[in-house]
Amino acid sequence: MRDTALELAQALIARASVTPEDAGCQALIGERLAAAGFTVEHMRIGEVDNLWAVAGERGPLLCFAGHTDVVPPGPLEDWRFDPFAARIEDGWLYGRGAADMKSSVAAMVCAAERFRSAHPDHAGRLAFLITSDEEGPAVDGTRAVVERLTDRGIAIDYCLVGEPSSSRTLGDTVKNGRRGSLNAHLTVRGRQGHVAYPQQADNALHRLLAVLAELAAHHWDDGDDFFPPTSFQISNLDAGTGAENVIPGIAEARCNWRFNPLQDEASIRAFVTERCTAHGIAEDSIAWRLSGVPFITEDGALVEATRAAIADIADITPELSTAGGTSDGRFIAPTGAQVVELGPLNDTIHQADERIRADDVARLAHIYEQLVERLLLATD
Amino acid sequence: MRDTALELAQALIARASVTPEDAGCQALIGERLAAAGFTVEHMRIGEVDNLWAVAGERGPLLCFAGHTDVVPPGPLEDWRFDPFAARIEDGWLYGRGAADMKSSVAAMVCAAERFRSAHPDHAGRLAFLITSDEEGPAVDGTRAVVERLTDRGIAIDYCLVGEPSSSRTLGDTVKNGRRGSLNAHLTVRGRQGHVAYPQQADNALHRLLAVLAELAAHHWDDGDDFFPPTSFQISNLDAGTGAENVIPGIAEARCNWRFNPLQDEASIRAFVTERCTAHGIAEDSIAWRLSGVPFITEDGALVEATRAAIADIADITPELSTAGGTSDGRFIAPTGAQVVELGPLNDTIHQADERIRADDVARLAHIYEQLVERLLLATD
Repeated sequence: MRDTALELAQALIARASVTPEDAGCQALIGERLAAAGFTVEHMRIGEVDNLWAVAGERGPLLCFAGHTDVVPPGPLEDWRFDPFAARIEDGWLYGRGAADMKSSVAAMVCAAERFRSAHPDHAGRLAFLITSDEEGPAVDGTRAVVERLTDRGIAIDYCLVGEPSSSRTLGDTVKNGRRGSLNAHLTVRGRQGHVAYPQQADNALHRLLAVLAELAAHHWDDGDDFFPPTSFQISNLDAGTGAENVIPGIAEARCNWRFNPLQDEASIRAFVTERCTAHGIAEDSIAWRLSGVPFITEDGALVEATRAAIADIADITPELSTAGGTSDGRFIAPTGAQVVELGPLNDTIHQADERIRADDVARLAHIYEQLVERLLLATD
Repeated sequence: MRDTALELAQALIARASVTPEDAGCQALIGERLAAAGFTVEHMRIGEVDNLWAVAGERGPLLCFAGHTDVVPPGPLEDWRFDPFAARIEDGWLYGRGAADMKSSVAAMVCAAERFRSAHPDHAGRLAFLITSDEEGPAVDGTRAVVERLTDRGIAIDYCLVGEPSSSRTLGDTVKNGRRGSLNAHLTVRGRQGHVAYPQQADNALHRLLAVLAELAAHHWDDGDDFFPPTSFQISNLDAGTGAENVIPGIAEARCNWRFNPLQDEASIRAFVTERCTAHGIAEDSIAWRLSGVPFITEDGALVEATRAAIADIADITPELSTAGGTSDGRFIAPTGAQVVELGPLNDTIHQADERIRADDVARLAHIYEQLVERLLLATD
């Protein structure tokens, strides 16, 4: 008899796959999927392990997307139990990846197995896109796999990303979009000098903070029906030699926008460049890096099926949300796929003692299974 | 026969007295002054060597003030010659302290010797206040010596500080005052968090830079007949964990005011505290350190004698200035003394290849000697 979803989650947690390591997780997943009739393809791209698996010949393509890598555990003394022991205590499953997101991956695999077993001749196609580089640079992971799929003419119709979306109880929140994320690294150069002779120097920090204060005070937008307002945060600022009597000749800052579809990269860059120019900061003082564009999956077959599956198994109506960080959904949505994210509670992710209710793994597998049935059997 | 002023300057440079070390300079100075009839007192205060010497019994007290410590030479490969070799090349005296300010000290000693020899029964009193902690914290140096003198009821009437005041040619600039210097260290605490969830965090850096931008843009005053406008400079700012997705929970900055008598410590602190409060920064987030109050020596016997001595020996009319950094004059002026600063060219101070024209050492000694004659013989 097959392991339960909880047992599979434990087996995956026990493989210490700190990003970008996969540590054998995908081999285990691939084995299980192959046994369930999937065509499994291991794609090693750069230093990153990825897995693509598909079952079914034609019709709508529903893809489970997820990752096997986890963030580092941090100081071990902060943990009650070994972060890779996958210990169950008082009904909780503890371990790095318990919530983000090995339990989701385990639930997807078990849902697929049961679906394939119950409906061997199902219409449509069921697929898995699993990477080991979601927590890292995310360059040779989902993004690269999607490029290959596109080159082959494979288009995903529906994508369920297993990121931990729930906040108080399993299924209470479904992410049906994400804000975009844009980074800027500002490096302002002036002329170093003695604080007693400011006329012979040019304080790089004064110019930088004048523009940053403007940006921090700026109201970007009010958001819309789906998205919260665009937010701007300065994460790092460094200037000065350490000496109290030296005017800094260079000042650097890093900042980030989480932006909704009322903005785009070009509009933000144009505004910032204009303000920098007004403060004598040249355009080439800014290095930009776009980390994701906003996407939204409005009402449609995927959102409907997700809502219904949650109502059926968990007896609640989920809230749709676009808040929070980025996910690999940002690479899949631009291909035209409907994308939602549904997974366990996220209150302990990236922390010591990451954990979820042990029962939630099986419940999540049932929700996923329902979702597949609603989307693929309906096409019969 | 006695060494010339140039030879004495070389002997002092050869003693590598990097602050707060004196390296035997004051022993040599004390020996010379004792031989010239001075009562010499070595005052070791904390880790700092100081020298107080006086000749004459009563009448106006003219004090030469200076320091034997020098700033570190920095990378030796940046120097043409060993910084402590006191090499003379093409008419230039090279070495750390050549300009700041061992040549001045040597010139003072030789001027005093000649004056005492030519006028053994002079009226008035001639004194030396030499420290080895002018370039360092300046706590156990001139400040502490002045306290002891005050305790003994000794008041300085005229003080000539040997700081390198000249800019293009020897004697072209005399400092007859200095701005005050006030330091502030701001530490703003907020709440760290993820950039994607700003509502759950409080960006310490945003609040800090809002108030700093206001202070940097503020017009403090226009200066007056003697002083340039008050200036404000932020020397250091640090915030952030290095990670791009973390909102900083703490942000720190160091800043400095060079202020004229239109401001004082209380007025600056009141303004800054009010602006900080407006930005939600508590008063106890700021650590203040007053490093000197402004002082001015207006026209009077000392300024007149200095002008006349320079005109006599160097044939130019000096400009009076209050610009530039602080000096130990800030500790002497508050006692009621008239204070001026006169020394060699300052264009290479604190740099590699610090140097002055070798001829200027003897010329400076002649100017100093003239100054003593004009102030002390006039009282006959």
